[in-house]
Amino acid sequence: MKRAGEFELIDAFVSALPHPRAPQGPGDDTAVLPPSRENLCVTTDALVENVHFSRPAFSLRDIGHKALAVNLSDLAAMGARPTWWLCALGLPKNTTRAQVLALARGMAPLARQHRLALVGGNITSSPVLTLTLTVAGQARRPMLRSGARPGDLLFVSGTLGAAAAGLSLPTPALVAAQKRPVPQVRLGLAAARWASAGIDLSDGLLADLGHLCAASKVGANLRSAALPLHPALPRSPKALQWALTGGEDYQLLVAVPPRHAARLGRAFTRIGEVTRHGGILTLDGARVSPQGFDHFRR
Amino acid sequence: MKRAGEFELIDAFVSALPHPRAPQGPGDDTAVLPPSRENLCVTTDALVENVHFSRPAFSLRDIGHKALAVNLSDLAAMGARPTWWLCALGLPKNTTRAQVLALARGMAPLARQHRLALVGGNITSSPVLTLTLTVAGQARRPMLRSGARPGDLLFVSGTLGAAAAGLSLPTPALVAAQKRPVPQVRLGLAAARWASAGIDLSDGLLADLGHLCAASKVGANLRSAALPLHPALPRSPKALQWALTGGEDYQLLVAVPPRHAARLGRAFTRIGEVTRHGGILTLDGARVSPQGFDHFRR
Repeated sequence: MKRAGEFELIDAFVSALPHPRAPQGPGDDTAVLPPSRENLCVTTDALVENVHFSRPAFSLRDIGHKALAVNLSDLAAMGARPTWWLCALGLPKNTTRAQVLALARGMAPLARQHRLALVGGNITSSPVLTLTLTVAGQARRPMLRSGARPGDLLFVSGTLGAAAAGLSLPTPALVAAQKRPVPQVRLGLAAARWASAGIDLSDGLLADLGHLCAASKVGANLRSAALPLHPALPRSPKALQWALTGGEDYQLLVAVPPRHAARLGRAFTRIGEVTRHGGILTLDGARVSPQGFDHFRR
Repeated sequence: MKRAGEFELIDAFVSALPHPRAPQGPGDDTAVLPPSRENLCVTTDALVENVHFSRPAFSLRDIGHKALAVNLSDLAAMGARPTWWLCALGLPKNTTRAQVLALARGMAPLARQHRLALVGGNITSSPVLTLTLTVAGQARRPMLRSGARPGDLLFVSGTLGAAAAGLSLPTPALVAAQKRPVPQVRLGLAAARWASAGIDLSDGLLADLGHLCAASKVGANLRSAALPLHPALPRSPKALQWALTGGEDYQLLVAVPPRHAARLGRAFTRIGEVTRHGGILTLDGARVSPQGFDHFRR
């Protein structure tokens, strides 16, 4: 197989994705973005082979999709409209042009759907495949983690537990939730109009609720019977555990003042409420600890 | 040695560097940057262990310094004023809090000097140490690669060849040039007022001149006797080779219309001129090929 040069790989990657021409896009020492009247929301997140995914369980298209999806999910959590992104790839030495194209083609549908322009990036060799993306969006009034107040109602979008279950069960819908998470950008834009606080569910419901409560200096109570488990999951203790601590669902958790709760719409399910007991999380009234996902403690 | 958790490592890293509070800085799903009237210049670049540096030849402070320096050099090449950055770290499993602090302390002097605010980032485990930075600056009129015109004069800042020589020779000044490159931010801001085009010297003078000429659809002639070799280098064929193709000098190469040449000041040395022969580089009138640095062909 022909060994591809750095610039050939860059050309292949850029060709498969929506991008403006230089100076706005790839081709100069930096991208150049015109001034904007709104706040800029910007985030960076990395996927590393054998940490976040392994091959061949994940195809290169799966990996490309997931790398962009998890970054877009952070924008969704702010209620930001995606605008541009940068992509830094670390590629094993024998990576081919066709493999880089497969990564890009896994990203392209999300990039097109969200009108996200690739404006720059970097390709280097690396012992394992790594993808480090920086994604930016615009928001007039970003939805922060720190705005929740006692009495606010807690809602989640979509369903919970499928991504974690997809690591153990072969059910196609669950495996798809693990490999092809869907960032809730549209719901984030809608929720930001009414929510006092929001976060996306990457570490797990309890862990992310813990982050939101810490930032807002509040507590929370959840009702287990209210949690919207994915329909492919049996209602079992294991399923409840996946929903509470599994992580990677990339749904949105938002706190909403009761007077606005009816505005959220049917994509959200009420699962509990914010309390005045700073830092204390309860499930059906019994105290629970946020057991999040931590790469350095597994 | 105590094994540190992900959030403990993040806290250590952030504590050592200038940063605003959330929502502007680290702590929410994304950073939030206020609107700006100038163009935003943004770049991402990665350093990977055993590709761009190896230990213990490079200390963790060297590595931190170099990761930030090479990204700032891209901003310098645009004539942009640095403003904010994001830092994604890939850390081997046994990385300690003290090691993360050493990386941050290698970065801190440059961050302070250039008033660069750390607004977010990511930490994950990785088989080798990787640093992927995204750095942003502002520029009213960015200096692009594409503006050079036949008749423009070519200048470089500082001296050439030291970084490449520092890989082979033990001379302290040369080793320092390899490990602690200095991004020419101030000179970039000054040159952008007069230059028609600019680029930083990361791949090597001939390779980067080739990039600038390709973007501008012009050629160039260099005079070998005019090249400002680093004073610790002997004037030998090897030294000339380092200056022409060694790379990593992180000086600036700018094209300037003759009428503005006197404005550049003494930090720049005239080394040649832009010609109308698109894509053709000559050295003392003889044709040369840009022999750049390519991680995938070594």
